[in-house]
Amino acid sequence: MANPLVDDRGLSFVLYDVLGAADLARLPHFADHGRETFDAWIDLCRRFSRDVLYPAYRPLDEDPPVLVGGAVKVHPLLREIWPRMCELGVIAASRPFEVGGQQIPATIALAANLYLMAGNCAAYGFAGLTSGAAHLVEAFGSPALRERWLAPLHEGRFAGTMALTEPQAGSSLSDVRTRATPSDDHFLLSGSKIFISGGDQDITENVVHMVLARIDGAPPGTKGVSLFLVPKLRLAEDGGFEGNDVSVPGLVHKIGWRGLPSVILALGESGDCRGWLVGEPGRGLAHMFQMMNEARIMVGANGVATASVAYLESIAYAKDRPQGRSVTDRNPLSPQVPIVEHADVRRMLLRQKAIVEGGLALVLQAALQADLAAHAPTPEKRRRAQLLLDLLTPVAKSFPAEKGFESNALAIQIHGGYGYSSEYLPETWLRDQKLNSIHEGTTGIQGMDLLGRKVMADGGGALSILGEEVASACARAARAGVDPLWIEALGRATADVGALTMELAGRGMGGDVDAMLLHSSDYLELFSTVVVAWLWLLQAAAAKEALAEARGHPDMLQGKLAAAAYWLRFELPRIGPLVATCREGEDSYARVRPEWF
Amino acid sequence: MANPLVDDRGLSFVLYDVLGAADLARLPHFADHGRETFDAWIDLCRRFSRDVLYPAYRPLDEDPPVLVGGAVKVHPLLREIWPRMCELGVIAASRPFEVGGQQIPATIALAANLYLMAGNCAAYGFAGLTSGAAHLVEAFGSPALRERWLAPLHEGRFAGTMALTEPQAGSSLSDVRTRATPSDDHFLLSGSKIFISGGDQDITENVVHMVLARIDGAPPGTKGVSLFLVPKLRLAEDGGFEGNDVSVPGLVHKIGWRGLPSVILALGESGDCRGWLVGEPGRGLAHMFQMMNEARIMVGANGVATASVAYLESIAYAKDRPQGRSVTDRNPLSPQVPIVEHADVRRMLLRQKAIVEGGLALVLQAALQADLAAHAPTPEKRRRAQLLLDLLTPVAKSFPAEKGFESNALAIQIHGGYGYSSEYLPETWLRDQKLNSIHEGTTGIQGMDLLGRKVMADGGGALSILGEEVASACARAARAGVDPLWIEALGRATADVGALTMELAGRGMGGDVDAMLLHSSDYLELFSTVVVAWLWLLQAAAAKEALAEARGHPDMLQGKLAAAAYWLRFELPRIGPLVATCREGEDSYARVRPEWF
Repeated sequence: MANPLVDDRGLSFVLYDVLGAADLARLPHFADHGRETFDAWIDLCRRFSRDVLYPAYRPLDEDPPVLVGGAVKVHPLLREIWPRMCELGVIAASRPFEVGGQQIPATIALAANLYLMAGNCAAYGFAGLTSGAAHLVEAFGSPALRERWLAPLHEGRFAGTMALTEPQAGSSLSDVRTRATPSDDHFLLSGSKIFISGGDQDITENVVHMVLARIDGAPPGTKGVSLFLVPKLRLAEDGGFEGNDVSVPGLVHKIGWRGLPSVILALGESGDCRGWLVGEPGRGLAHMFQMMNEARIMVGANGVATASVAYLESIAYAKDRPQGRSVTDRNPLSPQVPIVEHADVRRMLLRQKAIVEGGLALVLQAALQADLAAHAPTPEKRRRAQLLLDLLTPVAKSFPAEKGFESNALAIQIHGGYGYSSEYLPETWLRDQKLNSIHEGTTGIQGMDLLGRKVMADGGGALSILGEEVASACARAARAGVDPLWIEALGRATADVGALTMELAGRGMGGDVDAMLLHSSDYLELFSTVVVAWLWLLQAAAAKEALAEARGHPDMLQGKLAAAAYWLRFELPRIGPLVATCREGEDSYARVRPEWF
Repeated sequence: MANPLVDDRGLSFVLYDVLGAADLARLPHFADHGRETFDAWIDLCRRFSRDVLYPAYRPLDEDPPVLVGGAVKVHPLLREIWPRMCELGVIAASRPFEVGGQQIPATIALAANLYLMAGNCAAYGFAGLTSGAAHLVEAFGSPALRERWLAPLHEGRFAGTMALTEPQAGSSLSDVRTRATPSDDHFLLSGSKIFISGGDQDITENVVHMVLARIDGAPPGTKGVSLFLVPKLRLAEDGGFEGNDVSVPGLVHKIGWRGLPSVILALGESGDCRGWLVGEPGRGLAHMFQMMNEARIMVGANGVATASVAYLESIAYAKDRPQGRSVTDRNPLSPQVPIVEHADVRRMLLRQKAIVEGGLALVLQAALQADLAAHAPTPEKRRRAQLLLDLLTPVAKSFPAEKGFESNALAIQIHGGYGYSSEYLPETWLRDQKLNSIHEGTTGIQGMDLLGRKVMADGGGALSILGEEVASACARAARAGVDPLWIEALGRATADVGALTMELAGRGMGGDVDAMLLHSSDYLELFSTVVVAWLWLLQAAAAKEALAEARGHPDMLQGKLAAAAYWLRFELPRIGPLVATCREGEDSYARVRPEWF
């Protein structure tokens, strides 16, 4: 049987039984929808991914793009895939009807995207980037820009990119140097960008780059950075298109996502690269960051999807591959058992399951809060959801990337020697996964964002809201008859995190920001463990409810309880020493001097 | 500056200041040696690796072997490298003078090999495999076999392989099916082997396969497996060589170690493949396992070497790459700082350092015990060393593989977007490293070996010896003025491990082997953390001693203290929840049924 990419029953369980996403249709904005249209959309994408994207996965990995005469040629299969993916409506699925979208909740769009990403992250990448660029134009572009660019982006006639990074400005975007010189209704851009995913290809008529640049005379730092729309081809006077002095001097050879080109862009080498300001001057980074929750949750979703497909592959392998016998079976003539019968293999599978399905609940929970933040009926509910979304975002971005990488490595391990060969797919997913801890803000940056900004937001309000959610999950679990020890463990861990956070906040407010942030990566790790424990307790509660009512598939529900047990009993206690170290302020790496290495 | 592969000062410090390896020269077997010859050998290999092996690393990775007309063609650079490596004397360095070796202690040979492996694991692999095959012939071969095969193997005119694995017999070697039918002075072999590293190439005159096979009529299982020497070419009647019906139907495309072919071998497809029995019939696995400590420590050494070269690469990058400013610097005009100035980057570097240099001390300590087990003056000392070696082996094999993989991933992370490209080398080392958790017994198997056999050996005697070593390290650390909290932490952790082990042993002796082994992987992890903490405490003690006597390089010594602090204060406490879970017997993955996944 072909790899299912994502477990259908488990996804439906998390969406509807755990998170109650069907209720989104009660919000006026989603009134034209209901569980039927949600499921129909997910099913469309699921089938498209299984039938079209996934079969192209290995070919795209094996033959990455090439640069020929200054133009990027991508895998020829993308010429067939791209129009079909656009026709499906993937790019604008969650955008409002008024701009040609289907007004599907972000939660449902994300659920569907999980299949697309699990099937072929590189092929989906073109659509994801185009969505992101279009959303920027929709949110901040002038009516003229929206009129001109939105439809072809949504239709996929043009593709979009995010052109932020420069050789000297990666994590530090305030150091962007690309210049924008005012000229008539536009600006003349000049500079160099690097790592621009989808920065050129031969599958769309045009490419629309969303470029960060500095208007002449702008102040240094963040406040001098503006956002521009810079097309590869611009409208010519004759109504056709002409070159816009955007060239591709080179390709980056990525180790994963190999179907999606990563290019170096040279803007204005002949002094004739035109860009149009999007939003306000000096607000480029702010505009970008308004999209950042969305972008980071998509990275998290990719982490989940990439771990999911590998997890499902390792289950199939473990059930199929005979090797060895039980430790107590001394009879060499007894047949070998499938390796899933070995406890240590099940340990690895259960760990993968806990990471994949904990991560899946996490990114869907974040997307749900995004829907509520935008469309909940009252300002108070919207505000609450926004705070929770902001708090969950660094976790949703980094947990699937970091633990997903571990999970992807376990998929190789379960495949043994075969897993170490390119005849089998787990190694490709491991390579894909590594990107997710780097792009859209490294894991280190997520840790500083969480501890330095998010948990402190609103005077600790965000953390209180999370506490309320945990309390409500504990109450639900108690009603459903979940093991009281699990509930107690989550309650205690949440209290520990709260107390630790107050203590660290005190250090920051006392003026010692370095001391507050010293263990931000460790804090991120322990905080993420607790958040995922909350989502596993919710899943355990929903599983117990379903079992009591004889709803749902018993094997799937028992699996949920097993994974919940693993996370709550095995993984959650591991935060103890991390909390202690953060509190104690163990400072070996703060004190170490560069010359000591 | 080119990557130094291994830190020279740090290696010398561990060898001589921490482990006192110079004292090996006092043993009669090594009487012709002294620190000067030790250092000379290490230096020879170091320079050879820096000048010859490392420059060929990327080329070998980029152009892996191909199969042409049934013969494997390896990278042409190997034709230049191989004779030089043989001439250096790498293959037989640690073998006795009487068989043409240099009688160098295993400890020193391993230290030198670290450079060779860090420079080019694939190129070194040919020599390592040849050493292993020759050692089997030396230890178990008849005088006739030794006479015929040992010299050309040691000289590198022939290369050796280990032909154990079959498609249905990987981790479970007792399921080997290759047949050996008696015929005159030899056996006729028939069967298929897979994943045979160096199984064919075009750089030596001949290839000598050490093959596990089953003599006709042999009992099933382990006791029916014998060891054979099966050459690619056999001696013909005319005194020349002729084909021996060993063919290569295919190559495995490994994701790392790509310069070293991994082949499928077909033995006796024409019924004319001759093999010669090595050792006793039915003792093939036992003979192999007598070499297993050696082989597994070499895997551990490879894990250390592969993590070392990547660690050194990330230090150089972190000191060179400017990006961002300190969290408290709000002036966008101030120059960017090298990323090593960011605490979170130093955290990653210090974690790499602690893993690499902790692992280095671990594999050298194991090799030292191997030297003592073979050559210590009294039977009691030899026995003690053997027990400690046996106990350390699963740790030395798996810790560098597992934590080294994490360390290699951190090297990519530190390189950011550049690390995700094949323009930079960290991704190649990550691929290389993954093999080490798989070959020569997976990590899961090491866990079962440690808990099921090694810590129980000699009625717990091995564990007592480790306890004595820890106590002696604590005493040394106390004398040297190491922070008493660190000493206390190690003492407590060691006691915890002892108590846990007794408890688990009790379960096993009570007849419930499954319960004893339930958490063997977790036990391996916590046990390894404690063992490495012991080695870090020893390094801290030696650093304090040197600082007090104004010996050694102060920066290097301060770095040792910082890494020791990190391991003892941050990493060691993390065993707490693992110990609790093992004791408690959390059984989610034991109970989970295959159909629940």
